[in-house]
Amino acid sequence: MEKINGYTTLVEHTLTRQDFNDKPIELYEPISYILSLGGKRLRPALTLAGCELFGGDPNDALIPALGIEVFHNFTLIHDDIMDKAPIRRGKKTVHEKWNGDVAILSGDAMLVKAYQYIVKVKPEALPQVIKVFNQTALEVCEGQQYDMNFETQDDVSEDDYIEMIRLKTSVLLGCALKIGALVAEASVKQSELIYRFGESIGIAFQIQDDILDAFGDPDKFGKAVGGDILNNKNTILQLYAQHHANGEQQVALKAIYESDNKKVEAIKKVFIETGALDYAKKRMDGYYDEAIQFLKEANGLPEIENELATFAQWLIKRDL
Amino acid sequence: MEKINGYTTLVEHTLTRQDFNDKPIELYEPISYILSLGGKRLRPALTLAGCELFGGDPNDALIPALGIEVFHNFTLIHDDIMDKAPIRRGKKTVHEKWNGDVAILSGDAMLVKAYQYIVKVKPEALPQVIKVFNQTALEVCEGQQYDMNFETQDDVSEDDYIEMIRLKTSVLLGCALKIGALVAEASVKQSELIYRFGESIGIAFQIQDDILDAFGDPDKFGKAVGGDILNNKNTILQLYAQHHANGEQQVALKAIYESDNKKVEAIKKVFIETGALDYAKKRMDGYYDEAIQFLKEANGLPEIENELATFAQWLIKRDL
Repeated sequence: MEKINGYTTLVEHTLTRQDFNDKPIELYEPISYILSLGGKRLRPALTLAGCELFGGDPNDALIPALGIEVFHNFTLIHDDIMDKAPIRRGKKTVHEKWNGDVAILSGDAMLVKAYQYIVKVKPEALPQVIKVFNQTALEVCEGQQYDMNFETQDDVSEDDYIEMIRLKTSVLLGCALKIGALVAEASVKQSELIYRFGESIGIAFQIQDDILDAFGDPDKFGKAVGGDILNNKNTILQLYAQHHANGEQQVALKAIYESDNKKVEAIKKVFIETGALDYAKKRMDGYYDEAIQFLKEANGLPEIENELATFAQWLIKRDL
Repeated sequence: MEKINGYTTLVEHTLTRQDFNDKPIELYEPISYILSLGGKRLRPALTLAGCELFGGDPNDALIPALGIEVFHNFTLIHDDIMDKAPIRRGKKTVHEKWNGDVAILSGDAMLVKAYQYIVKVKPEALPQVIKVFNQTALEVCEGQQYDMNFETQDDVSEDDYIEMIRLKTSVLLGCALKIGALVAEASVKQSELIYRFGESIGIAFQIQDDILDAFGDPDKFGKAVGGDILNNKNTILQLYAQHHANGEQQVALKAIYESDNKKVEAIKKVFIETGALDYAKKRMDGYYDEAIQFLKEANGLPEIENELATFAQWLIKRDL
């Protein structure tokens, strides 16, 4: 993934040279802060990849790519308020470090900043770029709302759940790629196909994240295994298991355990027995295959197509 | 103000026909709700006026005008959270009727919705429209932040205060007018002049609001007189009086009174004695005169110019 790595480096370098130190500092300091916490910068890298895939100069997509990253970080600030999350990437969240009002208002300013970056494209591309970005931004809000609704809703289907993760996280990957494609003046069909690639690979990734949370290798996964189980979170595994458990398995799903470890092990057993693990893997593979199909149909430059295929593989086929 | 009244009616009519009833309803219902609470729709009416002033068809500016109104209402939702305001236009605020999370997320969605409306202009006008809107949206956030900062800051100058009200409220009037002008393909100079008209008249209006709060006729002002004094709010009068009061007047400004009425009367006396009232009137007149000058220089169609001059007069020269 030499190219993608190059893109992320270029994005990081450009981002650190941006000056967010306007006045009043109370408004702009949190913006610099959240952006300084790091992150892989994969979304903006996809914008550059989407541009080069269709013969464009990735430098032409660099500023809109920053807009994608700034938008993503805006959602983190506001989501962290709603999730009451104290920590983000090992540091205090904005509402914890400052307060809720600062987090609301800095987030708002960041959303506007994202637009300022996004619109820095050729006038010919502008209407389409802004259209897909507007739609995506609205869908991300819808996804967050569904996610919050589902916390207290007991009739969530697997498809509802997948629709939620599509809106909350996957459409932004599609949007990132499509904006790159639009900057490169790709055809409508190509722009749409690369959007679909991003969307599908995003869903596959989120399903995998659910699987890894329960069945991942703790050394490789990078976070404690079983967190979703212990927090009673909706996951594709949990929902499928609920819908397909027999009486005994239902009891196991709802039981109170002496230790966290016992709970995780018992519920993982139900995930296997009910077929939830197999089901999740099948859905994940389905979205992954679909994504690769969209990528091929988009018929971009082979070098970048290979790069994106490798990226997709890297994203999904992490060791279980 | 037959024209302006016609514009507000047209905006209201178009707004009520908009369908905000998308899913999830938890996200969209608060948007319909805040927009249904009313308001004079003056900002979007200014967009139509700005368009017709320079020979454009106001219908071409109607959808972007809705964007201005939706943006304004987005700021109300988020500001009400920060101000902990329970009531807006006689009804519960969004965060009171639902909760803070709903108010944050619906507000975010509303900001994106505003962009969806704003960009519905001819492609030629789009880059300039989005540029002024982005800048304005950011400035409105800056104004709100300054407003919050000033609550706990004791060295606020009169000019700092005016800069705050310029950012928080006046630039949006300028932006509303300028977007109309851009839709009408007015010259750069004309678009800038009509922006300045809106900005200056907005500042004059806010200063007048400060004056009326203390010295207005309760029957005509529409809200209780002395509210700013009783809430120890920064106003141009309060700041000037603080900076120019002698020892005795300083005591009066900070004294504790047996009744609200005594406090209001005592502080109004200081406002008069220190020259704060005269100063505020002078500043207001200065911005008003400046506004009219910009309007004339903009050299638009006489009929609409007269209409806007009458509007400015109506806005400012309410009986004291």
